[in-house]
Parts: sequence; structure tokens; C-alpha cells
Amino acid sequence: MADRDDIDALIALMARLPGLGPRSARRAVLHLVRRRGSLLTPLAELMATVADSARECLTCGNVDTAEICGICRDPKRSSSLLCVVEDVADLWAMERSGQFRGRYHVLGGTLSALDSVGPDELRIPKLVDRVSSEGVEEVILALNATIDGQTTAHYIADQLEGRVPISSLAQGVPIGGELDYLDDGTITAALNARRRV
Amino acid sequence: MADRDDIDALIALMARLPGLGPRSARRAVLHLVRRRGSLLTPLAELMATVADSARECLTCGNVDTAEICGICRDPKRSSSLLCVVEDVADLWAMERSGQFRGRYHVLGGTLSALDSVGPDELRIPKLVDRVSSEGVEEVILALNATIDGQTTAHYIADQLEGRVPISSLAQGVPIGGELDYLDDGTITAALNARRRV
Repeated sequence: MADRDDIDALIALMARLPGLGPRSARRAVLHLVRRRGSLLTPLAELMATVADSARECLTCGNVDTAEICGICRDPKRSSSLLCVVEDVADLWAMERSGQFRGRYHVLGGTLSALDSVGPDELRIPKLVDRVSSEGVEEVILALNATIDGQTTAHYIADQLEGRVPISSLAQGVPIGGELDYLDDGTITAALNARRRV
Repeated sequence: MADRDDIDALIALMARLPGLGPRSARRAVLHLVRRRGSLLTPLAELMATVADSARECLTCGNVDTAEICGICRDPKRSSSLLCVVEDVADLWAMERSGQFRGRYHVLGGTLSALDSVGPDELRIPKLVDRVSSEGVEEVILALNATIDGQTTAHYIADQLEGRVPISSLAQGVPIGGELDYLDDGTITAALNARRRV
């Protein structure tokens, strides 16, 4: 039964993915085994390709298959607007909105005294460099509205003080949001930032 | 940006796994890309191996890497006890309990008029063959306690009537279960099958 171990090993590896536990990994592997031709083989090949080619963009930290990512290489995107995000997933979320035509800077996390994550772990020095060298005219802080995200935003705003105008995403009621389901902090923020109609 | 498409294609394939949607597939792919050496490459290799080698056991329908699975080949397992399950996942669940030392027969689903699944789609004829040819002394119906599972159990019991003793898993209060959280059907079944202490 030596080979049966491969299936168990595959389940164990799949269970290490976020969002999958041992039970859902077993279901996923059974699903894959039943769809060998249409799903398992293509997935194996694509994973091997991506494992070979995926890398972090040297400029912004985005995940791409080139040393400088497609967004940083795109001449149609403004280099005067720089959007700072915590994570590549946040960059992808911004891109899905299709509204932002500047460039990005991925921090790779938030400052955290508990996890001893300081500015040097977060590509903050690189951000300061880019602001000077790339002629950035506005830095948009698109950090998560969590305590860690906002602490990091304050730190970055301090570092860039006087060098470049800094803005941050508006806080308020999400589109489709119902007041009854919103937390007090969001309602307070939306009230404080109210606009004349 | 042609290669960036590989990452998007990988996300699209991962989103086809049960338990993952588009959002969790993105998270999983980012997780994989960050752990290229420790997770993505091994996963790609293991998937390729399993895609090459995994197959359904010709005798019982279990998923294994040999034509006859490890359980059917194991001489230490009794061939006189045959446990009938709906699905390979159920077989694995039985094996995790470590209590059953007989062999299995995987139906591959349940009878369903709506989905036009008849006995021939379910390896039921093969089950009848095995009962005659393998000297089975007891068939244990370990089908799910759902309407489809129980309908299928009744059909199989009819087919095997008079050929072999048939039993089914006991129904009752699960270990650790609290009466207040159990449905009426389970409480009724547990009451009807009460045992003297």
C-alpha cells in the first residue's frame, strides 16, 4: 500500500491551504481524483508553471511572473499616484474595482509590536525611496480599517510628512449597507464625514 | 502580461474545488505563491503523481493506486463481512474509526428517480455477484441516514433477501450529543431502539 500514501500526503498538503481543513481537503482530493483529466492534471501542470514563474515585483511587491510586474511596466498608468496597500490580495481587490489608474506599493503586512514587525520588514524604506525617486504627487493610503492598519497608516503619514500630499480611503457606510447591521464605529465615522447633498 | 494569466487560470481552477469559491481560491493561490518551495512545488508534483496513478478498485470501488485496492488485497481482513457504503468518503470515515476489519463495497451514490440513477449505475449488480462469489456471511449496510440512503438500503436488502444476513448501522444519539439539539427523528429512533442497562 505504499502508493496509497501519495493520496494521504496530497490530502495533508491540501489541508494546509487557508480555508481548507482535514475534512474539506479529503472532499477536495476525492473531487480531484474523480476529475483526473479535466481538473487534477491541468491543476498539477498549472501549479508547476506558476511555481516556476511567479515572483514578487521588485518595485511594488505585487505577485507576477516578471521581475517588474505588469502594473509597474504599464506606461498608461500614472506614476504620480501611488496607492499603498497591506497585501497583494488588497491590490487585487483595488484592481477589481477598475477605478484606480496609478501604481501600487505593497507593504507585505502591518506594523506589529507583538509579532515584532518593524518598518524594515514592511518595505516602508522602499516606499520612502519611491516617493522621492519616481516623482509621486499623491500617496493614497488604502490600508485596512483595522487598528493595525490604521497604526501603520499613521506611521507612514509621519514618515512622508512634508514630502508629498497623503490621502486615505473614505470611511463610511458601505454600498448596500444597512445601518441596523453596522457597528458604532462605522456609523460615527460616516456621521463625522457627512457630506452636503 | 501573458504570464499573469497563469495565476488567474490557477485561481479559476482552484475555485472549482468543493469548499472553495473565487475569494478563498485567491487567498489559497496567494498562500501557495508565497510558499513556493515548501507547498506549491510539492503539491504540483504530488498532484501529477496522483493523477497518473489513482484509480478505482475494480472490486470494491475504493480509490487507490492499484487495480485492486489495499483493503481488498489485505489477507488479514475478513472476506466474510462486507460493508456497503455510498461513497469513498464514507469508506474513509469507517476506516478512521479503525473498528471494521472486513471489506467494503462502494456504491458510488444512491438510487434517485429524479437524477435517473438506477441500480446499474450504482454497482448493485456487482454487489450481488460478490455476495455469491466471495462467501460473504454478513452484509452491513452503512448508508447515510438520509431518505435517499435509506431508500437505497431497502432496495439492496430486497435484492439480497434470503441470500445473506443483512444488518445496518444503529441509529440513535451520537456520542457527545445533547438531546436538546437533536431532531425529533433521531430521538424517536433512539427511543425505539432503547437498550436495557
